[in-house]
Amino acid sequence: MKIDILSLFPAMFEGVFGESILKKAGEKGAVTFNVTDFRQFSNNKHNSVDDYPYGGGAGMVLKPEPIFRAVHHLTEHTASKPRIILMCPQGERFTQKKAEELSKEEHLIFICGHYEGYDERIREHLITDEISIGDFVLTGGELGAMVVTDSVVRLLPEVLGNDESAVKDSFSSGMLEHPHYTRPAAYEGMMVPDILLSGNHAKIEEWRMKESLRRTYMRRPDLLDQIELSDQQRNWLKEFKNNIE
Amino acid sequence: MKIDILSLFPAMFEGVFGESILKKAGEKGAVTFNVTDFRQFSNNKHNSVDDYPYGGGAGMVLKPEPIFRAVHHLTEHTASKPRIILMCPQGERFTQKKAEELSKEEHLIFICGHYEGYDERIREHLITDEISIGDFVLTGGELGAMVVTDSVVRLLPEVLGNDESAVKDSFSSGMLEHPHYTRPAAYEGMMVPDILLSGNHAKIEEWRMKESLRRTYMRRPDLLDQIELSDQQRNWLKEFKNNIE
Repeated sequence: MKIDILSLFPAMFEGVFGESILKKAGEKGAVTFNVTDFRQFSNNKHNSVDDYPYGGGAGMVLKPEPIFRAVHHLTEHTASKPRIILMCPQGERFTQKKAEELSKEEHLIFICGHYEGYDERIREHLITDEISIGDFVLTGGELGAMVVTDSVVRLLPEVLGNDESAVKDSFSSGMLEHPHYTRPAAYEGMMVPDILLSGNHAKIEEWRMKESLRRTYMRRPDLLDQIELSDQQRNWLKEFKNNIE
Repeated sequence: MKIDILSLFPAMFEGVFGESILKKAGEKGAVTFNVTDFRQFSNNKHNSVDDYPYGGGAGMVLKPEPIFRAVHHLTEHTASKPRIILMCPQGERFTQKKAEELSKEEHLIFICGHYEGYDERIREHLITDEISIGDFVLTGGELGAMVVTDSVVRLLPEVLGNDESAVKDSFSSGMLEHPHYTRPAAYEGMMVPDILLSGNHAKIEEWRMKESLRRTYMRRPDLLDQIELSDQQRNWLKEFKNNIE
């Protein structure tokens, strides 16, 4: 996969793309990252990439030319049709499903604005996707592009090792994870539950299923509407509800 | 405000904390950032910070000691009570409201795990908040901590300049923004709407209100349930609905 980023702050990406899984994915050849400062595609002598909004008002608007020209430059010699993704608070909410969809593409281009709005013609005539990572205000699209990149790249074949894949799988059950404990069994008076030290694997499995359900019920009951529950799970749910009342 | 980050990958933060608004906020003295590798608080000769889960199973679990000891080290000489935030997919969904709440604190400590689970005693006895930025799987908590940090720091007094503040205010209307356009009026055959070039400010304002409503209706109708609409806005909504049917 090829990932292009258009940003006015390319140095923001160095730490994130140079560490951990994203670094390993690059070294394994699963992905190539390329961050382009689209200011170099400005066609005026001041290298400006934004201008005042037509119709008046506060704030600046990113001009169409530098972004159209930058995308053209990145795509003129590629046969594959890239996904051209605008990071913006008005976009489609990013989900794991979207990450899976994007992980099947050959080429992603992220457009990251900063403070300003985007000239609407970029939305109408250039991009294929608008993505928001949530209902909060960020300084620019860069952090969103890193979030989407991280979640997509870790889905590419051979990027994750076995341990990490297992963690991913456990997340996919549709429920929140049960509590985890590791050594020491007693730390400053805080104890690991006896059941986990018992060696009784059937009981441990049952405890984990129940605690996973309990946590999902307490924190994210919306997730329970989307899965089919067993009889035992329904009985546990009744027990949780009675305990609360 | 003081922001401490506990992470095994401190270099990930360099680009993001060293650029743009976060850099400016640091230079203005509005915030100090401190990233600590909690591996240095391991108390075993291998410097390990994780171990196998009690009860068996795949994946590793972050041990309690290094994280308890790191937080103790960061707080033993501070009078203020910090918010100790665990970044994890099971946490409370991050929102702008949470950003506003956290922006009133003096000291935030973010705990970022990587691949592994957290020993449950960290959750039960150490932290004050668990935050998730969305329903997608990331390699670690680092990107989430950056997202929360960015959205919180830009709310601190004097961090944003006037232009940027204006953008923030326009986002707070409860609706999505209307389209923006800037020069040139014609670019490769793509035109700015005539109304924006008319100089008729009352008409422009009306167009913007209507397009803001249209976009919100098309993309995020859930937002409309949370605001009181004027008669004109309700008429426009009827018009949009009729156009679709």
